[in-house]
Amino acid sequence: MDKHARPFDKGLEELQKKLVHMAAIAETMIDKAIGELVTRDEHVADKVPEYEDELNRSQIEVDELALVLLATQQPVARDLRFIVAATKINSDLERIGDLVVNITENVRILAQQPRLKPLIDIPRMADLARKMVRESVQAFLGEDPKLAQAVIMNDDEVDGLKQQILRELLTYMIADPRTVERALALILISRHLERIADHATNIAQDIIYMVQGRDVRHPKTAREKPPTEKPSTESQP
Amino acid sequence: MDKHARPFDKGLEELQKKLVHMAAIAETMIDKAIGELVTRDEHVADKVPEYEDELNRSQIEVDELALVLLATQQPVARDLRFIVAATKINSDLERIGDLVVNITENVRILAQQPRLKPLIDIPRMADLARKMVRESVQAFLGEDPKLAQAVIMNDDEVDGLKQQILRELLTYMIADPRTVERALALILISRHLERIADHATNIAQDIIYMVQGRDVRHPKTAREKPPTEKPSTESQP
Repeated sequence: MDKHARPFDKGLEELQKKLVHMAAIAETMIDKAIGELVTRDEHVADKVPEYEDELNRSQIEVDELALVLLATQQPVARDLRFIVAATKINSDLERIGDLVVNITENVRILAQQPRLKPLIDIPRMADLARKMVRESVQAFLGEDPKLAQAVIMNDDEVDGLKQQILRELLTYMIADPRTVERALALILISRHLERIADHATNIAQDIIYMVQGRDVRHPKTAREKPPTEKPSTESQP
Repeated sequence: MDKHARPFDKGLEELQKKLVHMAAIAETMIDKAIGELVTRDEHVADKVPEYEDELNRSQIEVDELALVLLATQQPVARDLRFIVAATKINSDLERIGDLVVNITENVRILAQQPRLKPLIDIPRMADLARKMVRESVQAFLGEDPKLAQAVIMNDDEVDGLKQQILRELLTYMIADPRTVERALALILISRHLERIADHATNIAQDIIYMVQGRDVRHPKTAREKPPTEKPSTESQP
């Protein structure tokens, strides 16, 4: 985006502001849900449903704003990619909210039973996922492909933690059937955190595409078949 | 979309064709993955990674085509909503592919061990998810909000099956620790199927929005706060 004070920029700024707000809500939600898991204080995550409502409202507003900008401003090139990226980031942030709601459901199941084990890997995974969400949206604001790349790199660590958590909890379940329900709830929480990290990774990939016009979502695929195929230029007026 | 032979229509038709193709691939993938789970024939799902590559390639092509159409044709109203919906449906179909890959990983874990139980609910869930994917894209083609609504209704049945599967497999795990790994793999498969159904539901919601300009993604939220807020009309040229 250029920095001239075009009226159009107001719309883009508004889009940015809304997405930053959504990311902040998503981060807070993760924080509260895992906070309740760790502290076992049943009120820590009380506001998660309200936050989710707010994310849902924001999602509708962002899509509306993006459509208005596309229809009235008919942007091209980078502005166009920016707005399309915004609609995708919007969906990712909203689904992160859904995933935190799922986490909270499992946290409440755990709250009714004795603590299974001290939690180390799950809070670590949650911290990473939260950082990835924050940094992916920072990368969007700053149009910063390096930061986006750093977000993508974190995803491997998240996957490693997920595997470690699975192995450890399988051992618990096999050794003592009384742990099955709790261990399963923890495994599902780790899966939801993994998916949150996936959404942050998707956002980061969209940003690299937006800034560099280069698709990093499927590097192997892209190498095998470079995007030479340019669709229907005859459809230009 | 109107039915005049505008050159622009060629682009829209191309978009439709690509999405229909992606949906067909996604359906085939689900079919193969669950086919291997049921038959325990280790070659049934062999082509799943190839199909996923193809979905990934298609995703890039659809996004490129949508950007070209937005930039060169500057569509408004329904055409604009159609193209934005196409980019969202595109992401959903690609992620369905990822989920089937996850299912296949769990199918392979199960293949190495004796059969835990006859499978009824999971194939039923897979059939439903597959039907939802197909019908959501049919609803897109036919711009058919009624069919989209039917897809959304199916999601409740999927959620019911998910709960039933969880309850039954928890019982197995608690009764016999030797079943833990297999039961967990089945639970995770059912979760992936549930997410596939969620993506089909998202597609259906996008279609209702596209056709009716009415947001059904968050009915409760929408009631609480009707979309009166129209952003930045002053940014019109």
